[in-house]
Amino acid sequence: MFKKISSTANPAIKRLLQLQEKSRARKKEGVFVVEGQREIEMALKGGYEIPEVFIVEDLISEEKLERIFRRRKMPQITALTAEVYEKIAYRGSTEGIIAIIKTRDTGLKQLELPQKNLLILVAEAPEKPGNIGALLRTADAAGVDVVLIANPRTDIFNPNIIRSSVGCVFTNRIATGTTGEIIEFLQRNKIEIYAAALQASKNYSEIDYTGSCAIIVGTEATGLSREWVENSSQNIIIPMQGHIDSMNVSVAAGILIFEAKRQRGFQ
Amino acid sequence: MFKKISSTANPAIKRLLQLQEKSRARKKEGVFVVEGQREIEMALKGGYEIPEVFIVEDLISEEKLERIFRRRKMPQITALTAEVYEKIAYRGSTEGIIAIIKTRDTGLKQLELPQKNLLILVAEAPEKPGNIGALLRTADAAGVDVVLIANPRTDIFNPNIIRSSVGCVFTNRIATGTTGEIIEFLQRNKIEIYAAALQASKNYSEIDYTGSCAIIVGTEATGLSREWVENSSQNIIIPMQGHIDSMNVSVAAGILIFEAKRQRGFQ
Repeated sequence: MFKKISSTANPAIKRLLQLQEKSRARKKEGVFVVEGQREIEMALKGGYEIPEVFIVEDLISEEKLERIFRRRKMPQITALTAEVYEKIAYRGSTEGIIAIIKTRDTGLKQLELPQKNLLILVAEAPEKPGNIGALLRTADAAGVDVVLIANPRTDIFNPNIIRSSVGCVFTNRIATGTTGEIIEFLQRNKIEIYAAALQASKNYSEIDYTGSCAIIVGTEATGLSREWVENSSQNIIIPMQGHIDSMNVSVAAGILIFEAKRQRGFQ
Repeated sequence: MFKKISSTANPAIKRLLQLQEKSRARKKEGVFVVEGQREIEMALKGGYEIPEVFIVEDLISEEKLERIFRRRKMPQITALTAEVYEKIAYRGSTEGIIAIIKTRDTGLKQLELPQKNLLILVAEAPEKPGNIGALLRTADAAGVDVVLIANPRTDIFNPNIIRSSVGCVFTNRIATGTTGEIIEFLQRNKIEIYAAALQASKNYSEIDYTGSCAIIVGTEATGLSREWVENSSQNIIIPMQGHIDSMNVSVAAGILIFEAKRQRGFQ
């Protein structure tokens, strides 16, 4: 019924592997790869365009596909044998569906700010995909308005980020830029900058987060760059009383964001 | 100068590998393995006994060893060639030191409670070593009095837990037990139980954490068991407004613990 691929030597399979592994291939084609029904549904929720899917027919029925894509344009569908699917899938054959999705311009210029008291999370040069994923999950849970990645080390459509964010990379309003661009953007939009740092910092719980503000977190290894520390409205610190002086970055971000949420009455 | 091992076939190397890989081997011998200077120093800070170390002489000098073990009993020292060391080390040859450390009884009966308004973190059946590590880092940073692991799925001296906790597994006061035992222990010691759950839950920020209390978190996949939910003083919830209804467990624990810290004036 569908076009079927039964060899891993098929050029379509080679292309999928390239798109998964190489940031450059994603950039060149303007697409990326997503595995799993839940993640694909999150991408549709986020308004992403899905031109192609690859399925294992025993696992994903035509009715199921119609349910996933209801009221959306049906993508081009190719069936894979279980062996071929397992070659490209991270989670073996449990999911049975992989999609090719069109990237979006994540430049700051494309970013539309909602008209309200904004709550923004900025992460500077986050290292591990797992940390970025956890940051995006927290931002989703908190209903943060915008997530900005400063000086990103990889494109956000990296499969490890998609996976560890459980698809929250699609539901957050995300933009990327250099630290300088993002500082200029926040200042121009009159958004207070609260940078999690050690220098000249105030206890985070003494800050008023009820106006438009951005919470900035850096890497665990090196913290925030000087640009942030020098351009912040106020540097903030989570008081620590332990033997090590650092916390997982996504935990620190969660503590700061939910203090802001608490002050805002969880609205 | 030191006894030297230059073959990976040496029984001492086989033993190290066994201790790293097998919980049963650790239990049988009553020891576990720790890699890296920082982690070993954390174990010494935590009062653990270190009978043996293995070093690469080019990386760890005798003076350095004396500094690490100052005012402590010097362990038995064996030198390894770089090749042998790399075979057992996770981080290649960057550290150059691996120790054998004596386990401690983590049973609830051994636990001595400080006389004060206690703040306790309980994690039920945490799955991933990375999550347990992040929980222990947060507990260390917050100066939590006790960490209890209910229904543990692995012993806490698992190398992945030690590594991801950056040694905080040694500096926290930790005990393990079944969920039933821990509930009984908390109730007997008149410690309020606040269980992070969905059922019949109150917004976590509306709770008074200034008295002796325990914050209980479950797994991301299945949450807390019924026993906790039914025996809690109050179930608590972090209000979420996103597309997915879960958060990383270590992030959730960080938000709850630092709300308690905030209410306690970060004392």
